Amino acid sequence: MDTSAANPQDLPLLLTMGDPAGIGPEIVLKAVAARPALRDRVLVAGDVGTLRRAAQALDAVQLPAPALAGVDSLQAWKRRPASSLAVVQACQVLDPVVPGQVQAAAGRAAADCIRWAARAVLRGQGSALVTAPIHKEALAAAGEPYPGHTEMLQALAAEHLGVGSEVLPVRMMLSCPGLRTVLVSIHVSLRQALEAVTTDNILQTLHITAAHFARCGLPGVRIAVAGLNPHAGEGGLFGREEIDHIAPAVRTAQAQGLQVSGPHAPDTVFMRARQGEFDVVIAMYHDQGLIPVKLMGLADGVNTTLGLPMVRTSPDHGTAFDLAGSGRADPSSLLAAIDAALDMTGTDRS
Amino acid sequence: MDTSAANPQDLPLLLTMGDPAGIGPEIVLKAVAARPALRDRVLVAGDVGTLRRAAQALDAVQLPAPALAGVDSLQAWKRRPASSLAVVQACQVLDPVVPGQVQAAAGRAAADCIRWAARAVLRGQGSALVTAPIHKEALAAAGEPYPGHTEMLQALAAEHLGVGSEVLPVRMMLSCPGLRTVLVSIHVSLRQALEAVTTDNILQTLHITAAHFARCGLPGVRIAVAGLNPHAGEGGLFGREEIDHIAPAVRTAQAQGLQVSGPHAPDTVFMRARQGEFDVVIAMYHDQGLIPVKLMGLADGVNTTLGLPMVRTSPDHGTAFDLAGSGRADPSSLLAAIDAALDMTGTDRS
Repeated sequence: MDTSAANPQDLPLLLTMGDPAGIGPEIVLKAVAARPALRDRVLVAGDVGTLRRAAQALDAVQLPAPALAGVDSLQAWKRRPASSLAVVQACQVLDPVVPGQVQAAAGRAAADCIRWAARAVLRGQGSALVTAPIHKEALAAAGEPYPGHTEMLQALAAEHLGVGSEVLPVRMMLSCPGLRTVLVSIHVSLRQALEAVTTDNILQTLHITAAHFARCGLPGVRIAVAGLNPHAGEGGLFGREEIDHIAPAVRTAQAQGLQVSGPHAPDTVFMRARQGEFDVVIAMYHDQGLIPVKLMGLADGVNTTLGLPMVRTSPDHGTAFDLAGSGRADPSSLLAAIDAALDMTGTDRS
Repeated sequence: MDTSAANPQDLPLLLTMGDPAGIGPEIVLKAVAARPALRDRVLVAGDVGTLRRAAQALDAVQLPAPALAGVDSLQAWKRRPASSLAVVQACQVLDPVVPGQVQAAAGRAAADCIRWAARAVLRGQGSALVTAPIHKEALAAAGEPYPGHTEMLQALAAEHLGVGSEVLPVRMMLSCPGLRTVLVSIHVSLRQALEAVTTDNILQTLHITAAHFARCGLPGVRIAVAGLNPHAGEGGLFGREEIDHIAPAVRTAQAQGLQVSGPHAPDTVFMRARQGEFDVVIAMYHDQGLIPVKLMGLADGVNTTLGLPMVRTSPDHGTAFDLAGSGRADPSSLLAAIDAALDMTGTDRS
């Protein structure tokens, strides 16, 4: 770890370009064009040629792109030219890819950039990791064994710590202005999600959540735990998971000093959080948490991986292959993800 | 059926007082005070003394209550005094009840008023039924066999038609400005709700929904069907219900001429409906539909029972025993329910 650079203000935020055939390169450039101060905060881990081509494409439709400066290393970031966005060649030099298509070379480049950037942040040479969208099928075509960012980052963090992935549980937090939710389970069927509603999983989610906010300087967040069934089971009338699994987890966490309440009726707990009664809601399954966050603001949605030994955020959308290369992609969610990462590391946005 | 009064403009909308120990009587009076034109549209089915006491309680805290006029019968409604809210004694005369407590006498009065009002509308002597909130435990204490309004109205409608309740399937629709959702199942555990996701149940929901809107003069509504699993199962990766049950129901309904699409990813379908892409979303379980509707606007939420041979709406909240008698209850949701019923029967609101 580079202890000479412990102040996050002095470290670059590492931003991956995402799948080069998707909207990633375009929204990276648009985000920095919209907020020029980010040129002094961000180092893009990408393919320099891909970023240059994306900048040319924006220029061709009269959209401003920041000036780019290739840098050789993390150390060279401090000596980058003024008023330029620094890009480090974090993958093999890539031939032009076809926008909007699954390509193994694109998937490989995207994965290599994530590996490079994540390792830099884990070593303490970056303040945080923000990732542009990747494509699951392109990743698979490149022979990557991970279905997505989360699993890959979990493995990289475990490797860094010298432990197995299974001892490094992670959770997905989705947030938008006014609402944050942490999910007990994510990409499994609803039937399997029911089986994941166990006291251990909920308690683990509560500890990961509390630890995240404590690290961000918010130790006393009010955590609400949603029930699983309608009306949180109505005393066992509509299901017993609240009685058998959720309430015991809440009681244990309370006894351990966490500011936790619940299980609350799922259909009103998100509304109550939005009104300011709670800081974060623990959702029992994917859609319980994602329906309210996406309804409130897809454009500003941020995905944060909790449980990693680093700050990592991403926009709450995918590669949007249908928009790739069009110049019409919206950088709002990526900007929100960058802002969230800067906030979590105590870094001034300006 | 009173065929001399076929024009809904000439028929009263029947409004029940709800549980007299809850906020029902107060919000009935506040709704009419807020919208004086309703005095010429509404007949309250209640206990005259309870309504008079509620009006006095509002007067005591300087809140305006409409003048009340007891009427003996539906026929007498046409001869009510001008500028008064008509109330018919639809239950046995009730002694004063304690606000905010479960009481058998209160439950019995509430149930009797529903029976009286529902039968009047079923006979064609009322344009629509709007119900103020009742309390499940008070209903049980009174020996009523029904857990709530829906089951009771289903039985009354079946009795009116001379058929069994089982041949009169009903569905709950929840709506707020900008979003409508119809639920495949309601008050069962999430585990049981999974079992209710069958092609037959979904197809039945689609037909009940389409028939409702056709009767309201909106025959071509765009119906979106939500998936059950994250990302609508992602091609079978996260569950097979979409492939085995939901898609076949959508295809059958399309072949029958309904304007239906899906299954759509649950986490974005409500957002898309709100943006105007769909008119109504079929939700696979209680919270999938209720989380977005309550988040968007509990104050204006309306519950509509589809499948009955009459129009029936209610506010999207309960008896609020903690607020009963305080003068602080909000009539917005009841007003929205009355407006929705007037709209559905083609009745001018003014």
